[in-house]
Amino acid sequence: MQAVVIAIGDELALGQTVDTNSAWLSARLAEHGVPTLYHQTVSDDRAAITQALVTAAQVSDVVLVSGGLGPTEDDLTREALADAMGVELVADEASLKHLRAFFRLRKREMPERNKVQAMYPAGASMIKNTCGTAPGIRAELHRAVVYVVPGVPREMRVMFDRDVLPPVVEAAAASEAGRRVILTTTVHTFGKGESDIAEQLGELMARERNPKVGTTVAAGIVSVRVRSEGSDRDAASAALEQTVDDVRQRIGAVAFGRDCDTLAEAVITLLRERGLRVATAESCTGGLIGTMLTDVSGSSDVYVGGWVTYANEMKAGQLDVPESVLAEHGAVSEPVALSMAEGALENGQADRAVAVTGIAGPGGGSAKKPVGTVWLGLARRDGDDVSSQALLLRLLGDRDAVRDRAAKCALQMLRFDLLGVPMSELGWAMPREASEHGSG
Amino acid sequence: MQAVVIAIGDELALGQTVDTNSAWLSARLAEHGVPTLYHQTVSDDRAAITQALVTAAQVSDVVLVSGGLGPTEDDLTREALADAMGVELVADEASLKHLRAFFRLRKREMPERNKVQAMYPAGASMIKNTCGTAPGIRAELHRAVVYVVPGVPREMRVMFDRDVLPPVVEAAAASEAGRRVILTTTVHTFGKGESDIAEQLGELMARERNPKVGTTVAAGIVSVRVRSEGSDRDAASAALEQTVDDVRQRIGAVAFGRDCDTLAEAVITLLRERGLRVATAESCTGGLIGTMLTDVSGSSDVYVGGWVTYANEMKAGQLDVPESVLAEHGAVSEPVALSMAEGALENGQADRAVAVTGIAGPGGGSAKKPVGTVWLGLARRDGDDVSSQALLLRLLGDRDAVRDRAAKCALQMLRFDLLGVPMSELGWAMPREASEHGSG
Repeated sequence: MQAVVIAIGDELALGQTVDTNSAWLSARLAEHGVPTLYHQTVSDDRAAITQALVTAAQVSDVVLVSGGLGPTEDDLTREALADAMGVELVADEASLKHLRAFFRLRKREMPERNKVQAMYPAGASMIKNTCGTAPGIRAELHRAVVYVVPGVPREMRVMFDRDVLPPVVEAAAASEAGRRVILTTTVHTFGKGESDIAEQLGELMARERNPKVGTTVAAGIVSVRVRSEGSDRDAASAALEQTVDDVRQRIGAVAFGRDCDTLAEAVITLLRERGLRVATAESCTGGLIGTMLTDVSGSSDVYVGGWVTYANEMKAGQLDVPESVLAEHGAVSEPVALSMAEGALENGQADRAVAVTGIAGPGGGSAKKPVGTVWLGLARRDGDDVSSQALLLRLLGDRDAVRDRAAKCALQMLRFDLLGVPMSELGWAMPREASEHGSG
Repeated sequence: MQAVVIAIGDELALGQTVDTNSAWLSARLAEHGVPTLYHQTVSDDRAAITQALVTAAQVSDVVLVSGGLGPTEDDLTREALADAMGVELVADEASLKHLRAFFRLRKREMPERNKVQAMYPAGASMIKNTCGTAPGIRAELHRAVVYVVPGVPREMRVMFDRDVLPPVVEAAAASEAGRRVILTTTVHTFGKGESDIAEQLGELMARERNPKVGTTVAAGIVSVRVRSEGSDRDAASAALEQTVDDVRQRIGAVAFGRDCDTLAEAVITLLRERGLRVATAESCTGGLIGTMLTDVSGSSDVYVGGWVTYANEMKAGQLDVPESVLAEHGAVSEPVALSMAEGALENGQADRAVAVTGIAGPGGGSAKKPVGTVWLGLARRDGDDVSSQALLLRLLGDRDAVRDRAAKCALQMLRFDLLGVPMSELGWAMPREASEHGSG
């Protein structure tokens, strides 16, 4: 059993937008042992879409199509599928009702052109859309079953998992090829470069190995991809887990999670386990650490909140950073990072506080403090003891990269502190410049 | 003249990695008037790659292939191209020398298997790779010229711009179709649904119109794509600008920028023009508004900073929200949103302050305040006058969507205030619930 994944849209074909749906769809299929023969991206051209559908339906068993179901004139997937099937579009009363309800919920009049979203090719059937206006379509064409879902990732994913994947998996299980499983998982790491991780993984990355181990890097997160193939699901799964253990063993504390886990989730889990609450004090990251922490639902148990002290008056006025220290050392300095963390710990009545002050660029750099110079501060309260620690980072890349890495380093610094891991494990830190300050 | 873009790799077909090369390549081609017929992603399967190459070479004039040139057994693009051409692979002495030099430079023994990277199909020619080990290949197949470049983006981009694009552009210029330029731009809007925008655009979206107008939506931003085609660059460019003006005319204040402009940039530009400084007070967005504002370099002129008052003690302790108000109305309420904004205005010594308090979900919702209920507060200081205003939003979608839309609505609310645009223009606001508070 094989699949073809098709994405529709001028913005994709012209390269104005990167197609992420197809990767997501084929990854979900692979998890269930259905390999993808190819992906295709087609522009909003009725004839081209029809041609792509016919070709795909002749060489595969499942054709997954995303996009082109919107209400506008260049949404033509519905019409193209009808052409491929040689039928007309007909209206679906239930979908029309659902559409009207959707707009009523938003207290809005339903625009006339949305009605087309309740149409489908005669002989096909509708797939309900519970988070948007465009229902999906299921149709049979040549040797394949064609499933069309909206291009909006959130809608696409919900509909695929609920109404498309189950019948596909069932059909795959019935077919011969379907008995071969491909299981994949990913271990995420932060704080070391891809080549360092590869070196630590050593022969685990041997080409012919099964499970196969590879690395990819995105936004500073080096992800170790593990792929286990076999005819028996349990054996493949056991082999996968064994390899994951070996990977974790070799790369150590920088590994923070698997698959969709985030660094913030890992930190929040640790804080919750230890019954500790954290506050944040951010300058160059401007709220990014708070955003990452509060991305995690339920983070309010352990995150009290924080300050974005972008202007120096905010550092002084809100976090009690002495004007004299700001004047003497400058905003991007070890004493200011420490003072920001201590101020946040105190004013936020927290058990831990992280602070970031740095030069994100493109402007503001100097010979002594080039763009990418970032000081992290960490303050702890254990009983009556308050202590703090600073780390100097020298980050590379543009403004976005510096801010992103600085925020992630702050989270990893906090995680290492909670785990009792030495900060020297953090690849980008300049450990010799790290410092400890304690006060009884 | 038309192109087909093909990306090779199991990791792409299986969805472990998102293919960004194809979007980049087709965008570069479009800039030079060469439209892409379709993209295709093929797994490391010799027969499948051969089939894809043959099909593409029959329907297009240029076939751009990235990936599958590595030294390992699953890099098969070279062999597949030879199969498609019906020839054998032959060795290229110059490339072999270059390979050896590459490894000598890195003080490493050249692995035996790397030798294959110096092979190419008889009758084809090599494209030099100055930043990696894999040379590219240029070959003629059916009606098309096929260019194969490595999948590593950095290598691919350098080689494409240096050795692939110039001959393609030349051929395009020579061909009839090639004299056509394709210019594209995008006008971004926030605050209305895609179908509302489409309705306002009306006949501008007529399918056969040139410049062509289409819409896409991503993260609540409805983008109006304008594509102008013509034989004369200046005429096409003038037509493009005319259509952009017509688009702006019809959609009004929700349009905030073009191409890579962000909502935050638009807000910061307005604040700078008016010499005003803003502070933020965020609860459910957890720092996202601050992050968006500080994404813009130079935002420190107009952004003083803010508070992430995630816990109620922070709202009371840092923004002087009366405990009684929190107790009586709850954290997600109009008086708390107003009080947060006023507190931020006062304590941040700012001219404007925006505040957000809401229920991002998945938990925390109730019948009276379902997930997606968000109160925005805006406080202004004009001379001695301080006034504030609140808006109720009822947002749909998951936690990420609610937080993202809430932050963007807050920025758009501030932008409308600076422009003097009525808040009712903000599609998601419940205008009848808006309120005004003034104090001399």
